[in-house]
Amino acid sequence: MANLDGHLVDIGKVAIVGTGLLGGSIGLALRQANFAGRIVGVGHRQQTLDLARNRGCIDEGFTAWGPAMDGCGLVILAAPLGAFAQILQELAPYDHPDLILTDVGSTKQLVCEDVYRLLPRAMAQRFVGSHPMAGKELHGPEHARADLFQDATCVITAQPDTNPDARAVVEGLWRTLGMRLIDMTPAEHDRNVARISHLPHALAVLLVELAAQQGGLEVAATGFRDTTRVASGDPRIWADIFTTNRAAVMQVIDTFRGELDQFRELLAKSDPQAMQALLQQAKDHRDAWLRYRSDCNS
Amino acid sequence: MANLDGHLVDIGKVAIVGTGLLGGSIGLALRQANFAGRIVGVGHRQQTLDLARNRGCIDEGFTAWGPAMDGCGLVILAAPLGAFAQILQELAPYDHPDLILTDVGSTKQLVCEDVYRLLPRAMAQRFVGSHPMAGKELHGPEHARADLFQDATCVITAQPDTNPDARAVVEGLWRTLGMRLIDMTPAEHDRNVARISHLPHALAVLLVELAAQQGGLEVAATGFRDTTRVASGDPRIWADIFTTNRAAVMQVIDTFRGELDQFRELLAKSDPQAMQALLQQAKDHRDAWLRYRSDCNS
Repeated sequence: MANLDGHLVDIGKVAIVGTGLLGGSIGLALRQANFAGRIVGVGHRQQTLDLARNRGCIDEGFTAWGPAMDGCGLVILAAPLGAFAQILQELAPYDHPDLILTDVGSTKQLVCEDVYRLLPRAMAQRFVGSHPMAGKELHGPEHARADLFQDATCVITAQPDTNPDARAVVEGLWRTLGMRLIDMTPAEHDRNVARISHLPHALAVLLVELAAQQGGLEVAATGFRDTTRVASGDPRIWADIFTTNRAAVMQVIDTFRGELDQFRELLAKSDPQAMQALLQQAKDHRDAWLRYRSDCNS
Repeated sequence: MANLDGHLVDIGKVAIVGTGLLGGSIGLALRQANFAGRIVGVGHRQQTLDLARNRGCIDEGFTAWGPAMDGCGLVILAAPLGAFAQILQELAPYDHPDLILTDVGSTKQLVCEDVYRLLPRAMAQRFVGSHPMAGKELHGPEHARADLFQDATCVITAQPDTNPDARAVVEGLWRTLGMRLIDMTPAEHDRNVARISHLPHALAVLLVELAAQQGGLEVAATGFRDTTRVASGDPRIWADIFTTNRAAVMQVIDTFRGELDQFRELLAKSDPQAMQALLQQAKDHRDAWLRYRSDCNS
């Protein structure tokens, strides 16, 4: 676990909006890094807030903004993407010149547009879009872990006019959680995650449905378990992700269909050497990526 | 680890053709189950045979059939599928009325056709096609494990005229290794594995290539790692699998393209409720499958 980043020392109170797996894990990690300020949770469901408090993710949970935002220096949106627009509108009245905001949303273009559309400009400039690329197919604060973000990557999608102090605090937050930072524009981010997360998720869902409807599950083994693991993810969260990134996902599906057609042609040609060359190339690319990941963390 | 099945007691010598991950693991498992007969390996590369012997997978390794087949009661083909036709032709002269044969090939229709095409009929009737559904993306005897097959499924593709005694011995072999048995015709088997193994493998390969060529690997995380794990598999083995099961894989690709088109339409409609319903259905199907697997092994 990394040490508390200096930019977080004077933040005062942190409000985590949505205390599920991600929000809960942020609270646990901040506490483990000896963050001295108060950590509060905001949410609709008292039961989730109570669970998060009992697990030590937050000091206190609120279903109303007033007491949660009182003295708050940093707001972290960790609610489902579909709730963001309403949350931003509800947050606007609680702005003050030192308030800094960030989020953990899995898509960024729509979020960043909503921020500038729904918040006063000065407040929008203190919102630093983030996507900490960590998680698992489980959800809820009962699965929160202080090391969930350790050694993972966080994409920062700052805008040209993003407040530099706000950015330093938000970067300090993710560094405190042990993350590597990468800068991207919201559009770049959304195209990249469409390729390495949203398309793989869609394919996993369709693979499960194909086997469930046409047969084969009785002999499915560890390969199927791993290639489809993400299909056990939270349907609500993923419906939001697909809905908020539909243009990029549709585009990447079109590209992928072309790849699948080419693969089918290769099969039709029955050319084992060409097939082996493609499989070798993919293996080399994947093994190189595994080494890159391992180097990042050593 | 299961006990030695009674049908294996009087087998005498077992010859494992191909002492890689699967062949080597069979040898280790038989020895751990106190199989009393000799276990020999047959292969082209002395180095692999030596490694298998040093790891205790086999008692002795041969690059020639004569000494390996002398007194042999059970032959297990664990070589790459592409080598099967030649191996069957080379084995034919060593037949005797008590010789039993099986294989671990990942596709079954072509293998079973080759068996009846290339072996004398009485010998072909003592060949019991098998597909032990276990493995990992590593290969070679250095990764062999006695428990590789434990609690996994083995598909038996016997023919109407398969010798019942031969079948009892081969079923006893896989039971000794801790496997569950499922009967299928070779064609049924090949269609099922196209859906739950070969298509997922192809998609994993194409996902890796898409990200490698268009970008995103720098932010790819555990979801990508798991959905593409199988793409690190042995290119030679998988080229053989795709080549020997091309008709079934092409057919399942055509079906899957239809599913992908429907998913794209759902995205285009921007209907979060319908999307969430599809994702929930896939989650329910997958979670039910995980429970089925867990029930099988408890």
